[in-house]
Amino acid sequence: MNKGLFITVEGAEGVGKSTNIAFIRDALESKGLEVIVTREPGGTEMAEEIREVLLRNRDENVAESAELLLMFAARAQHIESLIKPALLQGKWVISDRFTDATYAYQGGGRGVDSNKIGILEDFVQGEFRPDKTILLDAPVEIGMARAHKRGELDRFENEKLAFFEKVRNVYLERVEAEPKRFELIDASKSLEEVQVQLKDVLEVIVDGIVNR
Amino acid sequence: MNKGLFITVEGAEGVGKSTNIAFIRDALESKGLEVIVTREPGGTEMAEEIREVLLRNRDENVAESAELLLMFAARAQHIESLIKPALLQGKWVISDRFTDATYAYQGGGRGVDSNKIGILEDFVQGEFRPDKTILLDAPVEIGMARAHKRGELDRFENEKLAFFEKVRNVYLERVEAEPKRFELIDASKSLEEVQVQLKDVLEVIVDGIVNR
Repeated sequence: MNKGLFITVEGAEGVGKSTNIAFIRDALESKGLEVIVTREPGGTEMAEEIREVLLRNRDENVAESAELLLMFAARAQHIESLIKPALLQGKWVISDRFTDATYAYQGGGRGVDSNKIGILEDFVQGEFRPDKTILLDAPVEIGMARAHKRGELDRFENEKLAFFEKVRNVYLERVEAEPKRFELIDASKSLEEVQVQLKDVLEVIVDGIVNR
Repeated sequence: MNKGLFITVEGAEGVGKSTNIAFIRDALESKGLEVIVTREPGGTEMAEEIREVLLRNRDENVAESAELLLMFAARAQHIESLIKPALLQGKWVISDRFTDATYAYQGGGRGVDSNKIGILEDFVQGEFRPDKTILLDAPVEIGMARAHKRGELDRFENEKLAFFEKVRNVYLERVEAEPKRFELIDASKSLEEVQVQLKDVLEVIVDGIVNR
């Protein structure tokens, strides 16, 4: 039974998630692995519809618990309908964000009680967690400067620096709490330097699996 | 502080909810009360978007927990953004379905563990419950025969009789468990007879409030 690995990639705005996820995919595929790249919120047709409801700019004030429940509804659908079936087929699944992002954005950024997030995490995931989480970390000023260059900001990106400081802090706290699951990458460096770090990390992960 | 009353109207397909909700609204307004009629899932722009995601016919298999979380996401938004503000302004709110429907349809009909529903009910509502719930009850054959006349069926209506038997049974169990909150109306009778029952029930409810 060769079950695939579930790897999540986390980080705030402008840390280079998209570029580096493409790099990670290529690196794993070059080792003969079958790789599926997906994202949260989203990843399936229904979960992407929920994503649209979540990210739409609207006049209506969004209730904190409504946002959280939508996030986990999309996640439940993503896990059951895409992630778990792919892993069972031996594919490696790379997700652009997962539950750590809920702790960082809703918990850290918006101040939602992390116990409330924990209730829904248990409700939806049971014991299911990422096998590995790669955190692309950079000081907020660097990330935001890069993100602003990309143009229009959505409801989540359109927030202040202080918000992203809190997001970053929660991510770093989670690395400290779960050092085995996390790989911390310094994303303030040049793309070349970031990808040297990623290459090393991936070597270790793949070797660990091949030799398990 | 004259807080409005929150009244929910429940019942399976074809029991005459829409017609009788219009009747209830008229009866309350004729007593000088300000009434808002709303529905679940839905009731606000965002909650109606969630409703669309829930009711859409799709090839993708919908995860049980995703359906439940969406239902409660819509409910959270409905409560915070419409129901509670209206009640605080002294308005009476009548909702076409509420959490009893989740216990009846997802719990009874689809076999979702009612403890899971309870976790989300507590998560979203805390202590908040309807002041009164009017259950329009009829044997399933009668309700289904009426519903089929209306034409196209959505994903929830397009189910078998056995499903609706389970839905009805859960509704009736809930009446038995909470006799003070529920008013049981025999909806198998003619519309005129149903509305005589409703008129009596509403008299008692309004008198109870005026004299409280």
